[in-house]
Amino acid sequence: MHGFSQRSEVATVLAWIDAHAARLGSERIGLEAACGRVLARPVTASLDVPAFDRSAMDGYAVRSVDTSGAGDYNPLTFAIVGQALPGQPFAGDAVGPSRAVRVMTGAPMPRGADAVVPAEYAEEKDGNVDLTLAVGAGKNVGVRGEDIRSGALVLEAGRRLRAQDVGLLASLGMSTVDVVREPRVRMLVTGNEIVQPGEPKDTYQIYDANSPMLRALVARDGGVVEQHLKLRDDSASIREALTAPGADIVLLSGGSSVGSEDHAPRLLAEAGELAIHGVAMRPSSPAGAGRVGETLVFLLPGNPVSCLCAYDFFAGRAIRLCAGRSGDWPHRTKQAVVARKIASAIGRVDYCRVRFEGDAIEPLALSGASILSSTTRADGFVIVPGESEGYAPGTTVTVYLYE
Amino acid sequence: MHGFSQRSEVATVLAWIDAHAARLGSERIGLEAACGRVLARPVTASLDVPAFDRSAMDGYAVRSVDTSGAGDYNPLTFAIVGQALPGQPFAGDAVGPSRAVRVMTGAPMPRGADAVVPAEYAEEKDGNVDLTLAVGAGKNVGVRGEDIRSGALVLEAGRRLRAQDVGLLASLGMSTVDVVREPRVRMLVTGNEIVQPGEPKDTYQIYDANSPMLRALVARDGGVVEQHLKLRDDSASIREALTAPGADIVLLSGGSSVGSEDHAPRLLAEAGELAIHGVAMRPSSPAGAGRVGETLVFLLPGNPVSCLCAYDFFAGRAIRLCAGRSGDWPHRTKQAVVARKIASAIGRVDYCRVRFEGDAIEPLALSGASILSSTTRADGFVIVPGESEGYAPGTTVTVYLYE
Repeated sequence: MHGFSQRSEVATVLAWIDAHAARLGSERIGLEAACGRVLARPVTASLDVPAFDRSAMDGYAVRSVDTSGAGDYNPLTFAIVGQALPGQPFAGDAVGPSRAVRVMTGAPMPRGADAVVPAEYAEEKDGNVDLTLAVGAGKNVGVRGEDIRSGALVLEAGRRLRAQDVGLLASLGMSTVDVVREPRVRMLVTGNEIVQPGEPKDTYQIYDANSPMLRALVARDGGVVEQHLKLRDDSASIREALTAPGADIVLLSGGSSVGSEDHAPRLLAEAGELAIHGVAMRPSSPAGAGRVGETLVFLLPGNPVSCLCAYDFFAGRAIRLCAGRSGDWPHRTKQAVVARKIASAIGRVDYCRVRFEGDAIEPLALSGASILSSTTRADGFVIVPGESEGYAPGTTVTVYLYE
Repeated sequence: MHGFSQRSEVATVLAWIDAHAARLGSERIGLEAACGRVLARPVTASLDVPAFDRSAMDGYAVRSVDTSGAGDYNPLTFAIVGQALPGQPFAGDAVGPSRAVRVMTGAPMPRGADAVVPAEYAEEKDGNVDLTLAVGAGKNVGVRGEDIRSGALVLEAGRRLRAQDVGLLASLGMSTVDVVREPRVRMLVTGNEIVQPGEPKDTYQIYDANSPMLRALVARDGGVVEQHLKLRDDSASIREALTAPGADIVLLSGGSSVGSEDHAPRLLAEAGELAIHGVAMRPSSPAGAGRVGETLVFLLPGNPVSCLCAYDFFAGRAIRLCAGRSGDWPHRTKQAVVARKIASAIGRVDYCRVRFEGDAIEPLALSGASILSSTTRADGFVIVPGESEGYAPGTTVTVYLYE
């Protein structure tokens, strides 16, 4: 039982993650599940959108040249020769001189017509229509391919799909899309003292806060929980869960420090590589990372605040990178002025929970890293880098918002 | 076939929504699905967290008074009388003078001991330990209830649950939680010309872009799709789908204007109340809203950009409010300087797609509202209020980011 002999710097851990958390391969999924996923390949249009010239207004399709001189005091009379609706083109031949076809927005333009006079400038009577607006060629007409041209690159690989992107792909007739596969995340929560919420417990047992918290974070970052096991502090079962195939990323919560019951670092070293153990940060200093084959393994302290912090600094970044997203913090940020001193130590990164008092922020007074309610009372956190002793009142800093 | 005789102002529509989109009732769900949901009731702690005094370090639990004078040049020797692990308290009686109990972080404090000397300041030998640090009472001890006190209000009703909130509830032993019910959203997509992506289509048919886009938006805003029907422009089937029970909110896409095939407004008026029809905005002016019984109905233009805009201004707000969230725009925002003039008209709200050029924004050149790719090329949008003619270059405006 001894402390860490040496701690890695946060930047070292991030560099290790960036070197090892590679974007996963692709899978084809239905379009209705694609929002938020990352395109695995560029998408090129296979057709024109719209596929035909169409009316952009409810009104009358005419030859624009015939409307010359039309106005409020000079209505020009056109014979109505038919109509066109969306999906239902004008049945007749080309529109001739002083002829009009009644059109709805989105209807195919009749042959011969090159403009639409909106209904507001029209008065129908006895099969004719009086038009009081002169229009130029192309007026109120959407031309074939004006939205998307066949053959055009519409979305680039690596793009995280938005709601309207999915709509755009649908407008091209696509019902499926190739996206980066979701990282399969195995969650291993260890600790003899851990009891599942809802079950009775003894005084000295504690409820498992990490599982539901980690599940929510994994979902946020685009991972999918492949397996979720609650394990006792028992080398054999932890080793088996750590080395079983099927996961891209393993989160191992608990037993990550250097005590007699902290099996995780040794087991990871035996099964593969313990690349990082102990990080110069607060909280979460007993965090670790490594690999078993191609699977990335993150050792998260069992303490919930440390677990949250180690997940957010390290594991979350790896999951996002594997999912094809940016590794950056996913939180909204806000610049704010420090109202009360935020203290840190040179050489250590601090994850400091803060609260807004008006527009300024104050650090939450903490008696230790184990106060989960500090993260629920806080509005967000400030990261104090290793080279800083903290922030004096009046300093403007970036706040990462929890909400 | 005529234009709108009068259009409602956007503010009028928003006021109507705020008056009618009431927070729904509650349901009890499992904690693991609760992140992002809104608490229906305040949560009060039913136990202390931690439930016992515990060690905050790996080390040796002692009577602090016995460490007085300990230091690097004055190690004090304590007899080790046992150990305590998380969930596994010291088996002996109270810790006596110059006695120590080996403790791990999170272990229950042995009776009699009131402080912990960290392992870094200890050297074990032959059943004894030499300690080289003097500690005060309470040092490295987390006291019962320091995180949460039994009986305390821990989270207020109306709070949107974060990952760590869910962890906090779990630490109280809760496996379920009462949250605001998800609005049940019925999606009705109308139009004879609409074809499902993946199916073959004629030249004059168009693929349904709105369904997958709306699905993604409904999910973003906390709604759940109760039913999703594709309907022809046929009064009987639209009426039936509009009036069937089971939905909190109905989205009716297509046929929302004033043309001969625009059945939606009339059918809504007949079945209940057409409160809004036609809005002074661009795009989406042929939007509408009303009610059938307690169900809110939104008429969305079939054109995908207008559909997106009308959803985001109106239907999305209603869904968020029913879900217990804030009605405000859910987008991240950024202040930016206008690089090229954004034109609008007095009396009309404009939803202007913009693109960043460096730190400044430019409106996308648009030939019409029907260009869905304008929303995929854009980085976000700017809202020009009704009382403004637009923004001159150099003006700082709020950009709502799509990403």
